Amino acid sequence: MRMVDIIEKKRDGHALTAEEINYVIHGYVKGTVPDYQMSAWLMAVYFQGMTDAEAALLTEAMWHSGDVIDLSSIDGVKVDKHSTGGVGDKTTLILGPLVASAGAKVAKLSGRGLGHTGGTLDKLESIPGCTIALTPERFVRQVNDIGIAVAGQTAELVPADKLMYALRDVTGSVPSIPLIASSIMSKKLASGADVICLDVKIGDGAFMKTLADATRLSRLMVSIGNACGRQVAAFITGMDQPLGFAVGNRLEVAEAYETLSGHGPADLEELCLEIGSEMVYRAGKASSATAAKDLLRANLRNGKALAKFKEFIAAQGGRLETLDGFVTAKRIEEVKAPRAGFVKTIRALPIGLATMKLGGGRATKDDVIDPNVGVVLERKVGAKVKKGETLARIYADAAITDEIRGSVREAFEIVDQAVPVPPIILDVVR
Amino acid sequence: MRMVDIIEKKRDGHALTAEEINYVIHGYVKGTVPDYQMSAWLMAVYFQGMTDAEAALLTEAMWHSGDVIDLSSIDGVKVDKHSTGGVGDKTTLILGPLVASAGAKVAKLSGRGLGHTGGTLDKLESIPGCTIALTPERFVRQVNDIGIAVAGQTAELVPADKLMYALRDVTGSVPSIPLIASSIMSKKLASGADVICLDVKIGDGAFMKTLADATRLSRLMVSIGNACGRQVAAFITGMDQPLGFAVGNRLEVAEAYETLSGHGPADLEELCLEIGSEMVYRAGKASSATAAKDLLRANLRNGKALAKFKEFIAAQGGRLETLDGFVTAKRIEEVKAPRAGFVKTIRALPIGLATMKLGGGRATKDDVIDPNVGVVLERKVGAKVKKGETLARIYADAAITDEIRGSVREAFEIVDQAVPVPPIILDVVR
Repeated sequence: MRMVDIIEKKRDGHALTAEEINYVIHGYVKGTVPDYQMSAWLMAVYFQGMTDAEAALLTEAMWHSGDVIDLSSIDGVKVDKHSTGGVGDKTTLILGPLVASAGAKVAKLSGRGLGHTGGTLDKLESIPGCTIALTPERFVRQVNDIGIAVAGQTAELVPADKLMYALRDVTGSVPSIPLIASSIMSKKLASGADVICLDVKIGDGAFMKTLADATRLSRLMVSIGNACGRQVAAFITGMDQPLGFAVGNRLEVAEAYETLSGHGPADLEELCLEIGSEMVYRAGKASSATAAKDLLRANLRNGKALAKFKEFIAAQGGRLETLDGFVTAKRIEEVKAPRAGFVKTIRALPIGLATMKLGGGRATKDDVIDPNVGVVLERKVGAKVKKGETLARIYADAAITDEIRGSVREAFEIVDQAVPVPPIILDVVR
Repeated sequence: MRMVDIIEKKRDGHALTAEEINYVIHGYVKGTVPDYQMSAWLMAVYFQGMTDAEAALLTEAMWHSGDVIDLSSIDGVKVDKHSTGGVGDKTTLILGPLVASAGAKVAKLSGRGLGHTGGTLDKLESIPGCTIALTPERFVRQVNDIGIAVAGQTAELVPADKLMYALRDVTGSVPSIPLIASSIMSKKLASGADVICLDVKIGDGAFMKTLADATRLSRLMVSIGNACGRQVAAFITGMDQPLGFAVGNRLEVAEAYETLSGHGPADLEELCLEIGSEMVYRAGKASSATAAKDLLRANLRNGKALAKFKEFIAAQGGRLETLDGFVTAKRIEEVKAPRAGFVKTIRALPIGLATMKLGGGRATKDDVIDPNVGVVLERKVGAKVKKGETLARIYADAAITDEIRGSVREAFEIVDQAVPVPPIILDVVR
């Protein structure tokens, strides 16, 4: 078997066999397939796509390229969730404790943030004392004990994906549906959960820009998961504005805390209840998705969800009993409405970039994050505003530059006509 | 400027600017653009193609990546020809002396053969004493003195092409019209001739398989050449059977000698007269292409063409006054017709491969060539044959294997119906 023949076969639009796909992936991880052949193959995949069967084979080859997490010693159905990433996306912090409070077993490995989107690990580490470096034994024991653990991915989990992603990033083959699907699903499969709920975001602040692309990606990921014996549901959700109000590490932790107390933003609570009820129902902890949703809504009000959150944070060494004194930004500046009208859009990308420039995110992998800074929206899409009313607050430790101020201000588009509140969930693929 | 942005721009189907193309090519030659980005860019070009203007910019960037031959001290119009390569293609050996005998200045750099097609340099070196390693000074002086010189390309001529071709060969981006056109034309432009005649072959033994592809390639090469201030004509010619009768280094030199004596195969003579008359007319050595053709035909009969050939070989150190004792293969074996009928096809590829396996070509760059071996056809397409008549002769120094014998026999397809003699020139693009 020769790599150049496999490149040409894909280039000419033919489906590859399991042997050929294994040759590519295992050869690349071993180093016998060089970068320059891999990048040409990835570009050929970009143009010619893959059948569902090929994408499943690719995912399997990647999944088995390194360690696989063994969750067999955890009793019951293990659930996991994944978001394609967005600005203000703190759903893991809420969903994890919420579904654990209903008896589902949440065993989740998370990543760090890069660029304009934050990562769950950075948010957890913004809590004093909280660690995400759990040994496999401690991870499994914690899930068995309290129903939830969130840890950082090790370098040995799906090394093929790390290598391929780094190469795609510099050779123009990132936006390929089968390559995105196999990247996400190989990590989810290696993480070992039985039930996987995916949050596929579309819009300005997200990777997928259109409903058509998000639907294709969702269908393919469900197909791959099913082919590999897992239950999968994909929620296509809007990211045309930041999720909830808060953007920035501690600001988002605080918002998660409020949401778990039953006082969260409407869009964020709705999203967590919808995805959470799917997880709880599929975990066998409710007789229907509707019953699961009623159970979760009750737990937000009766204190069980917040209690599980505190138990989870404490189990990972964190200290967060109350929110008093948690966010300590040195200065808070208000951004005012330049005119009266209705908020038509709040572009997520400039809000995310402003947070990054405040020090709340990473431009490069080695940047150190300031946990206190960020942006908190005061108004969301659909709101009626008067001239001079506060639209958002900027939380900063250093001086706030005109560039940052301008980013936040210009993220808001205000129009004369009334604007409907956009739906948070656009479609579900099962 | 970042290479990944240029890859994505081409991937998305946009035309690149001169600055971008120069960044790619000069960066690749300098080593600042790594192989893995170059191979992804080449694959994107494979899928998205290039405008004529982009292909001209690419050719210019490649052309200026290394040395450029200075022919300015040669008086008169310099002519050059290039063939895309075929089995039994000894046209340079004939065309060069033929057009020089009519007064045109032939300054030609040639390549070696690899795989099933032979190279002009190998054919010249099969002549005892003949060298192709001419210094630039000797090359220019010889063209001024006798009107013709043929030398090997140096490593410093168009290094971008060498690097890119080696990469394309292992990453699946060889069959791309703009990449093929820029590869050929960058070398022709760097070689310095004013008039460039191209022989674009199509068929079984050639790189282009269809008239449509050959026409696209021809038009693009003419467009590139004109954009760079050169006169270009491209002849699309048939390579559904080997050109002439002889395949193998000395066998082809001998056939060239015979053709220059006015006793060559009809297809070979016609091809040389057509391309040669274009070169002579454009060099200003005849008042029309028809007059040029009459002049060349006369020179084949009156001994001037053969005399120029002998003068050319002698100038490069070779000894070939007569053909007596020139081909010294140890054994000659006849391949007989298995049935009566008409020769419908003689597939060039198995004839070329048989010659390579006899030792007459290179499977790898380091193979040493046996100059005496090869295959000489006795019948060409359209011929009526009786059962048991000789179709071809195999010239060998070692034992002739069944595989070689089978290759030659199976190259011939014999049918009951009469078959017309195929035209040698299918189209001309100017």
